[in-house]
This record gives sequence, C-alpha cells and structure tokens, in this order.
Amino acid sequence: MKAMVYRGPGERSWEEVADPAIAEDTDAIVEVTAVTICGTDLHILKGDVPAVQPGRILGHEAVGTVVRTGGAVRTVRPGDRVLVSCVSACGRCRYCRTGMFGQCLGGGGWILGHRIDGTQAEYVRVPFADTSTYTIPDGVADESALMLADILPTSYEVGVLNGDVRPGGTVVIVGAGPIGLAAVMSARLFTPSHIVVVDPAAPRLEAAKRFGADVVVGAGDDPAAAVAELTGGLGADTAIEAVGIPETFELCTRLVRPGGRVANIGVHGRPAVLHLEDLWIRNLTITTGLVDTYSTPTLLAMVAAGRLDPSAFLTHHFALADMDAAYETFANAKDTGALKVVLSKEPASA
Amino acid sequence: MKAMVYRGPGERSWEEVADPAIAEDTDAIVEVTAVTICGTDLHILKGDVPAVQPGRILGHEAVGTVVRTGGAVRTVRPGDRVLVSCVSACGRCRYCRTGMFGQCLGGGGWILGHRIDGTQAEYVRVPFADTSTYTIPDGVADESALMLADILPTSYEVGVLNGDVRPGGTVVIVGAGPIGLAAVMSARLFTPSHIVVVDPAAPRLEAAKRFGADVVVGAGDDPAAAVAELTGGLGADTAIEAVGIPETFELCTRLVRPGGRVANIGVHGRPAVLHLEDLWIRNLTITTGLVDTYSTPTLLAMVAAGRLDPSAFLTHHFALADMDAAYETFANAKDTGALKVVLSKEPASA
Amino acid sequence: MKAMVYRGPGERSWEEVADPAIAEDTDAIVEVTAVTICGTDLHILKGDVPAVQPGRILGHEAVGTVVRTGGAVRTVRPGDRVLVSCVSACGRCRYCRTGMFGQCLGGGGWILGHRIDGTQAEYVRVPFADTSTYTIPDGVADESALMLADILPTSYEVGVLNGDVRPGGTVVIVGAGPIGLAAVMSARLFTPSHIVVVDPAAPRLEAAKRFGADVVVGAGDDPAAAVAELTGGLGADTAIEAVGIPETFELCTRLVRPGGRVANIGVHGRPAVLHLEDLWIRNLTITTGLVDTYSTPTLLAMVAAGRLDPSAFLTHHFALADMDAAYETFANAKDTGALKVVLSKEPASA
Amino acid sequence: MKAMVYRGPGERSWEEVADPAIAEDTDAIVEVTAVTICGTDLHILKGDVPAVQPGRILGHEAVGTVVRTGGAVRTVRPGDRVLVSCVSACGRCRYCRTGMFGQCLGGGGWILGHRIDGTQAEYVRVPFADTSTYTIPDGVADESALMLADILPTSYEVGVLNGDVRPGGTVVIVGAGPIGLAAVMSARLFTPSHIVVVDPAAPRLEAAKRFGADVVVGAGDDPAAAVAELTGGLGADTAIEAVGIPETFELCTRLVRPGGRVANIGVHGRPAVLHLEDLWIRNLTITTGLVDTYSTPTLLAMVAAGRLDPSAFLTHHFALADMDAAYETFANAKDTGALKVVLSKEPASA
Repeated sequence: MKAMVYRGPGERSWEEVADPAIAEDTDAIVEVTAVTICGTDLHILKGDVPAVQPGRILGHEAVGTVVRTGGAVRTVRPGDRVLVSCVSACGRCRYCRTGMFGQCLGGGGWILGHRIDGTQAEYVRVPFADTSTYTIPDGVADESALMLADILPTSYEVGVLNGDVRPGGTVVIVGAGPIGLAAVMSARLFTPSHIVVVDPAAPRLEAAKRFGADVVVGAGDDPAAAVAELTGGLGADTAIEAVGIPETFELCTRLVRPGGRVANIGVHGRPAVLHLEDLWIRNLTITTGLVDTYSTPTLLAMVAAGRLDPSAFLTHHFALADMDAAYETFANAKDTGALKVVLSKEPASA
Repeated sequence: MKAMVYRGPGERSWEEVADPAIAEDTDAIVEVTAVTICGTDLHILKGDVPAVQPGRILGHEAVGTVVRTGGAVRTVRPGDRVLVSCVSACGRCRYCRTGMFGQCLGGGGWILGHRIDGTQAEYVRVPFADTSTYTIPDGVADESALMLADILPTSYEVGVLNGDVRPGGTVVIVGAGPIGLAAVMSARLFTPSHIVVVDPAAPRLEAAKRFGADVVVGAGDDPAAAVAELTGGLGADTAIEAVGIPETFELCTRLVRPGGRVANIGVHGRPAVLHLEDLWIRNLTITTGLVDTYSTPTLLAMVAAGRLDPSAFLTHHFALADMDAAYETFANAKDTGALKVVLSKEPASA
Repeated sequence: MKAMVYRGPGERSWEEVADPAIAEDTDAIVEVTAVTICGTDLHILKGDVPAVQPGRILGHEAVGTVVRTGGAVRTVRPGDRVLVSCVSACGRCRYCRTGMFGQCLGGGGWILGHRIDGTQAEYVRVPFADTSTYTIPDGVADESALMLADILPTSYEVGVLNGDVRPGGTVVIVGAGPIGLAAVMSARLFTPSHIVVVDPAAPRLEAAKRFGADVVVGAGDDPAAAVAELTGGLGADTAIEAVGIPETFELCTRLVRPGGRVANIGVHGRPAVLHLEDLWIRNLTITTGLVDTYSTPTLLAMVAAGRLDPSAFLTHHFALADMDAAYETFANAKDTGALKVVLSKEPASA
Repeated sequence: MKAMVYRGPGERSWEEVADPAIAEDTDAIVEVTAVTICGTDLHILKGDVPAVQPGRILGHEAVGTVVRTGGAVRTVRPGDRVLVSCVSACGRCRYCRTGMFGQCLGGGGWILGHRIDGTQAEYVRVPFADTSTYTIPDGVADESALMLADILPTSYEVGVLNGDVRPGGTVVIVGAGPIGLAAVMSARLFTPSHIVVVDPAAPRLEAAKRFGADVVVGAGDDPAAAVAELTGGLGADTAIEAVGIPETFELCTRLVRPGGRVANIGVHGRPAVLHLEDLWIRNLTITTGLVDTYSTPTLLAMVAAGRLDPSAFLTHHFALADMDAAYETFANAKDTGALKVVLSKEPASA
C-alpha cells in the first residue's frame, strides 16, 4: 500500500510500504477513507518529537472501513464505518477505568503515528479496536466525523470542560489556529456571554468571527483592556491557551479574574514563568492535558443531531494520493488559508 | 489600650494607642481574650508587604468578647464569645454571594492587620461583624478556636479541598511548618492511604510524624523516590505546597501523577518555572488561593464534636502583655520549637 | 396606594391600602414599575397556601425604582432601577453563606406576597435590600428583567442545573406551561441534542415548539416511545417535572435512563408513589427545590449580552390599575393563550 | 465439583455439578478459596428474584486463584490471587466507559449467581476477567478482600459517596445489618461529626457502636428527636437507607435538613410514598443505585495500607464443604449474631 513515511527531520515520503497485519487479537485493520493532517505532524517533521523514529507512518486521525479484526474484538466488525481516534485505550488499566484514556498505562494513549504506524496510509492497524474506534452514525459524513478524531474532543475536553465554561461567562481564547477555532465552536455549546479571541494574524481573526467570536483582539491591541471592558475590570472567567508558547500562557494567567481558570491546550516546547508572587492570592486554577476522548461519543451524537457542524473546518480537499500536495497546502496555511485539509479515498471536488 | 504596632521594617512596638471605636454601623468592637502570631506577621515586619504602613496594629487572628456593635449588626451581641477570622466579608458582593469571601469586592478580604488595624491589641474593631465573626460553641476552648482564625481553614480549603484529597489517595505535603502540619491534620479528615511530608529540618519532621505523617523525607533524601515507592512509580494524587519558594513549588509539580493536583498554600515572593514542555501532556491541575473561610463553621463544629483537636499546635503560652516575648519565641522557632504561640488576656500556665 | 389584596379563598381586591414604610434598617421601599402574576398567586387565591392570611398583598415578582432605604442598606440607593426577587436573603445565615438563599434561616426565603406584603402594588417594602434586589443593567428592559424575578432562575436552577443538562443529552420536560417553557429556554443554554416536551394541550405544544422543543408529545401519544426512539431504547438523561401532580412526577421516573436524573420543579399538593422496587437498581437521582436565585446575576448578564431573550413570555400587557383584568386573562390562559402578563406603571400598548 | 445450587423456592442443595469451562475467550476460571453469603442469596432462596431459575449456582462474592484464562485475557494469569466482584464489566459499552459498570450494556452488571452460575462452588467461570477481577495486594488476607466483593463498595459508593458524606456532617444510617454497618465503617473515612444509627434490634445497635456509631436509636426512641438534638433542629446532612422497606425510606426523607441527601442502598420489593407536598420545597436529593465497583481498587489499597479493616464483619468461619451449616448460621443471624460468614477452602478455626 501507499503511506506517508517520516524519513528524518524535514523528510517525508509518500511511498509503497507493506500492508499492515493483525498483530494482537485486539487489533483491527481499517481501510482509510478520509484522513487529515495535524499541526503535530508538522512538529514531528521538524524533528521535535524524538519518540518518532524514521520509517514511521505519520497520522493519528482517520475515518475508514473495518476490513479485518483480531479474534478478541467484539464491538466492531468488517464492513463497519468507524472513526479512528487519536487516542487508543486498553480499556482495562487504572486510567482507562476512570475515562482518562489519554493516560492509558496498558499500551494505549497517543500511539498512532507516534509510537506505532499511523493513519496517513491506505490501511492502518488500530490496536484495542473495541475501545479505540467509534461507529459513525448514519447521516454523519466521513469528513465531519474526521474532525472528531482529535481537534474537537481536544478543544472540548482540554479547553472548554477543563476551563469550566458556563452560561453567561466570559471566555478568552488565545490563538485562532484550528484548535483555537475548535475551542470557539465548542465553548459556544455552553452559551457564554462573551468569547474573546486573541491572535496577531488578521485572517485568523476573521475566521474566529465566522466561528462565533464576539470580540477579537489583534496585533497592537491590548487583550487585558478588551477583557476588562467586558467584565467591569474583573477579568475573564476562563482563558484557553491554544498556541503553545510561554508568552501566550503567561498572558492567559493575567487575563483571568480571581477564581478564574486557565486551561492549557497548546503543546509546549519550553517552560513558562508562573508569577506566583501575584497569583498565589488569586484563587487561580490552571489545567493541562492530553485529550482523553471520553467525549467522542457525545460529540458524534451532537453532529448526528445537527447540534455541532464541523464542516466549517474543511477548507481543502484532496485525493489520498495527493498527500504531498495536501502537506504543502497545510504547512503554508498562512498563504493558503488552510484550516483542516481532508484527503479522501474517493477524491472530493476541491 | 496596648497594641503591637508596626513601626517600619524591622521595627515593632507594644505600646499605648487609642481604643478603637465603631466606624461603620456594621462594625463590632471585640475585646481580645486570645491572639496569636502568624508567619505573615513576620513577613510584614521585614517590610515585604508594602500595603502595611508604619503605625498599623498587626495581627489577623483572635478570639474575644463582643463589647459593642454598630446599629446594623444583627447576629452578634455584646457578651458573645466570638472567633475573629483573618478574612472579613461584606456579605453582599459577587464573591461573597458565592462563598469566596477572601476575594470580597465590598471592602473585605484580608484586611485586619493589613489594610486596617489588627488583632494584636486589647481591643479590635471588626468590620462586617455579622459575616466576619463566628460564635464559639460551648465546650470549645478559646485557644482551640483561635487555630480556626487562619491556619486550619487555610490548610483545609486551599490545601486539602483544592487538592481534592480523597480516601485511599497519596498526599505529599512539602513544608512542615505550622501550615504544613495543619495540612497533615486536615488531610487526615479524608483518610488518605499515605501522607508524605518533605522538609529539610529534622525537628519539623518529628512534628509531622506526631501530627500523623506516614512517611517523612528529610535533607538528603529523594522525595520522588519515596513517592514512587508508595505509588508503583506513578506519583502522588495530590501535592500541597506549604513553603512559598519556587523550588518547593517546582518539586510539587514533579511529584504528582498524571491527572494529579498541585495545591499551593505558600505565600510566594518570586516567580516559579512551570515546565510546560513536560506538563502539558500530564493532565495536571494547579490551584492557588487565599483562604475564603467558608469552612470555618464546619471546622468549629468538628472541634466541638471532638473530631478535630487543634491543641497540638499550641506550644507556647503568654500573657497578652508579653507580646514582645511571644514574638521572640515565634520568630526563633528553629530554636524554640514553637509552632503556634498563644497570648491570653488571662495568662495561662506556660 | 393601590394594591391587590387577598381577601380569603376566591376573593381578591384591587384596593386602597396604606403605603409601606421602612420597618428594618435593611429594608428598601421600591416603587413598582412592572409586575406580573404567578401560577402560585392563583393557588393562594384558591386558599391552598394556608400561610397566606386575608389582608395580605399578593405578588413576589417586580421591577421598580428604589425610593427609600433603611440606614443599613449599602448597595442600592434611591433612584436605582432594581429587580425584586421572589426570594429574600438575610445574607448571614448558614444557608445564605452557601448560596442557598431560598432556605434562608434569617427571615428570608420566599416571603413576599406570602408571609409579608408583596409586589402587586404601587410600592413594596423589600427586606434585606442589599441581598434581595439586583441592579438592572442598562439596555435591559423592565419587562425582560421581570422574567428573572422567578420563572427563569427557577427553571434554570431547579430544573436545568439540578437536572445536570449537558451538551448532547436528551431532556424531557413534562408540562408546557410558563415554567416548562422556561425550562425549554434555559435547557437550550447547554445545547442538549434533544428536548422533548410532554403536555396534553395542543396550543401549549405549539408554544413549546416556538421556544425550541425538538419533539412534542401530546394527548394520546406515548412519551416513553418517543424518548426510546431518540435514545436507542435507553431513556432520557434528564426529566424535568413542571406540572406538580403525582402522575407527571411518576412519569418522569419512568422516562429516564439508568444513571439519569429527575428534577422536580412542580409545586405539589399530594404525595407521589416512588416505585423503588424498580428504581432501587437504576442509579437514579431525584431532586426537588425552591429556587435559590444564586443564578439571577448571571441570567441578568445574559439578557444584557443578548444570550437570553425573555420577551417571548410576554403575551399580554396591562396598566397597573388594570390588575383585575390581568388576573382574569392569566387565570383563563386556556382561552387567552396567556403565558406571562405584565402590568406596567406606564401602560404599554397591548 | 461441589456447588450450592438453587432448586426452587425454599430449596437449596450442596451437590456435585460439572466443572465450569471457558465459554468466551474473555473468561477466566477461578478456584474459589473464600466465599461468603449475601442477604440477596436469601431473597433468591425465597423465590423473590424471578430471573434466578432452578439449577443456578448461587453466590456473587469470592476470592480465589485463577486456574485458566481465555485467549483474550491480558491482565490476569493462572496462579494470580484475585477478588471476584459482584459486578462484571464488559469494559467497552457506554456505561463501562464512564465507570458505571453495574449498568453494563455489554453482558455484564450483576450476573454471577443471578443470570449465570455463581461463586458458591469450588470453581467459578468469571466473564470479562480483565475488567471484573482484581489482583489482591500482598499482605491483604483472603477474608478481608472478600468483604470488598460487594458489601464495602456498595455501602461506600451507593451510600457514602452518593450521600455526599463530608467532614463535619451529620449522617443517619437507618438499618444496622451488615450493609448498614459497612456504611458506618465507610462513612467514617470522611470524618463526619455525628453518625446516628437507627434499628429496632438492640444487638445490632451494639454492633453499630462497635463499628463507630456515635448515637444509636432503638425501638421506642424517636429518630427525628435524636437528629434534631444534634443539628439544632435542622436535620441530618445525609440519610442512608440500608433496610429496603417503604417505612425506612420514608423515615429517611423526614430526617434530612433542607438541602440534604437521601442515599438508598436497600433492595426494595414494594413502592414507597414520596411526600412531595412537603418535600418539593426542601431542596432534597434522593439517589438509588446498584454498586458500580469503581471504588474497588481504592478500597483494596486502603486495606493494604491499613486504613480500612474489614475483619470486624467476619463473625463465623466454615470450611467450603460446610455450606449448609453456613447458610443456617447466616439465615438465623438474629440468634447467631452472624454478620458475615466466610467459607474457606482451607477450613479456618471457627
């Protein structure tokens, strides 16, 4: 089959590789019908994720059709249309028993396209298939379901739920890339009074407005002043960090009111400064997290019920064979305006 | 009357001052029968709390008898024996409505011995008396109640409840001064499986054992190894910071398991480093806070019911007039072994 | 002044009475600019609420202008436009300290138009004015704010929050009178996947659809079948009882899934049967409650921000002097289609 | 092998039956080393549980040694000493994903000794072995672990956690049989101020005192008066129903304060009356539930750490072959004083 293979820093190759086979009786082999590219894949390509070794097939998000299952698989069968989640779950360990699948101690967690071969391929082996795939309800398009492999549960769980977004609250989202926009979309499920989005790039702020931001704060504007105006000088109830650099995290800690929450979604490469000399007295709560995907069935049901429409993320469509072009488009989002690119087995009209 | 007055960095004086008078109709005047000294008073004396100006009477913890009340006071009357809390509450503002009295926007919060004259005096004016004093149940000694003015609600709310200590959990408490020991005492209310206390001073670790620590980690020992041994290498469920310096806070963030909580009680003067490059993926929750004292009535009831015995903190007893000696003893805790000193109107036998 | 006075079962009279005066220094006198009638007022008129004695002025919902305040009132002043809540709060007792104002032990709770004279009058004395009135933000109309005196916080707190309505859930609301419709409106703040409304009256179901019900179940239809179809046979996550008779409560207990919640809003006059022989094993949670009004400031902010629009409740407008006509219209809602009637000092165009 | 077989109402027989065999590859065969009898087994014997058909091996609690596992079992191996829980969990369904194992939709829940053969035998087939057995830590005796198969997680989850027992609270437990005593033991983990136990039988009240009840209320005493005296007339924070008849449930609803909780543990055969005409206004929460056993690993760890000592339940010891005598002793608890009887492969000294 064809697959996108990491060949070392800066090197990727859409090439012929061996088809995956069942390795454990809890595995399923899934034929990929729709796949996307994550910002994390770009980090890997830069060589920033040492656990990923050359030769690894990239990708941790897919929709596909089950073609073969191991002997212990019970809940999915060949022919099923499934969502392959970015997080695999053994279903038995201490963390899986409490729904914290991202911290699985039994061999799961984020492994696809990381510690084992991933989804940017014609076929993918999915471990722990019973607890790591989700049957897609009728009426939910592949491309919509695909947005629930990572970006929407991540923003919902790690941003919105950890941040305790509530009706009537004021939420600041720092960063208007795809994950920040997903935070706007999923924050709205709780009807906050104000969603403020901070980003230096004007086109991203335009996107944020389309997704439902009430106030946008660009380069040269003062986020603290914008938040103060909406909150009588008190600060936001929730700040969601969706960038992954120290400056934006530190900004978040300054934007929340006493008793507020900072929910970090960003993937960080460097430490931040925590100004405890100011913050010790402010009843602050800070959370971090890898997505656990406990919300995935709920979000799928919301798409089926018409309560969540992920199609707004889908800016570019490619055939699976055009993986190189898709990477180019996604990597140059600044110029192409790409939010999420979709590669489909059956090429969609772009 | 006599009072302990801050006279600028390094200068304090037990001196004659004017008696306090009712200033607002929500005030009460309380005759102090028992008072103590807090580590924060020592910080103030070093000049580290700029809001405290020379001339200020120190102290934010007391037990006493109401001698006069303003016209709007309804729930306490002259003759009542009351606890004067370190936190005053207007009872009307947004924060007071939700029990977050420490963040009061209506003129309360931590004001005694800080923004207004405090309790280390023969009499003290207590603002918002209805919502800032607590009638002491019969059978609860002044000295026991006094430990509920600050140290016990602080360790309970900001440490144990924010840290979500649960039956069967593993709790690490970094720092075995009075507030750390109070955290040991109040953590035990939830029957964790293991309480680990970390402190370089051997006498403090001895005290920690007396208060109920299961494992103590001293200078030269490795806290991470001690925690790993108890938790199968996973880390603690809760780490409580009870020192107030960057190193101990950073240690706490390393000692908790994925999904764990760091509850900061320490009063910090410098920023800490938050290693988000490691922590972003670990589902960590960090909390800070000034005590809100919402738990004070509950803790008083527990002392009355014999469920909480604060007398173990009371190492030294003085007459109120011996304030200077009490300060000396408390400031030299390293040599005197002082945990909490008590100054009483009727001198107790030391 | 003129006021609507209860004169014994079946007897009410819009008559001249003495103006109210400040009785406690925490009182305010409010000139009523908008007032409404509650279903509970009709219950009182039937003689079903024995605590209400003849001679009592009715009404527990109003918007008005503060004209005089007692000496201890701090947060409202003459000239302020305020919402008078159905629940008064002493602000000092055990329950008020925890935001459970409806259970106030200090003389508050539901007292207006019940234990003391109420709001259906030109002026009303409001006890504990600091903690029982809410300043109305600019841009919020009197009539919209008026819906926050009772109906919206009741449905939100006692129905939606007690029922733990969540994004993606299925909610059944039994009863489509004003309080049931308010539950539809406030449930939508959490974006459930499905809102099912059950009521035998077709016009009420039409109203439910306008308020946002997804599925309506009328006379002759089977609510259990409707819920089963939406939930794969499992049952609803939340059932909200908004009628107040045993049959509808018992229906709610049958409509929820294992692990679901029944939130009772209805005011009951008779006991219900709880089928513990079926329910003991189903992990059911049942809640009851009088509104506490802790959410009132949040809901006011949401109206100001355009997130909540109570104007859909306002079906009939009267001048204050037309109180009798307003009662007739509201009592005959079946024929008049009345949801909420508003009586204004300045008569609005009907 | 030998097993205790249900032979129809009133009929049981310790007889030779076929050894169990692996039926599904997720099964384990466990050699029983310790087993007990539950009050529910007596209900079954009366014919009150129609799902149990003649020929069924009874029992849903055991400790034993794994002797054989199906091909899909990963976390337990032959030779492992395990606790067999009363609740089996498929580990994959909607309820298992959220820790609500008792409501498993994938073939689990309470099935042992109910829908499939149970544990009162020399060997038992345990379905879903990975997610339905618990490895017993070294140092925890078989007999102590056995008390975690049902009685302790049931009282802890369904009584204490559902009832939100908190430090300083007042808890009433109605019923001092084994499950009520287990509620006393597990309530103490949260250090309530007062535990009140209500039961008409004097010997049971003696047992309650030994387990830690502070106040006991016997036949002829007034529970409401006892609770009122401890709570200033307000009522208990939590009432735990541990009998299973309408009268005791209704008593519980009368004993709690406004805002309190009634946690039902009892297995009921008849409906109760819910006095909504009184309760609608009292902010009551009522919960029911079958145990989910999410707390089992925590409770095992607490036994290992010496924080929970279940040995107090073990009043009578038998060899496995003396099953008939054990049933006699347990069924006549009134005369024998039996709390829990233990049958061991190696006969213990009685």
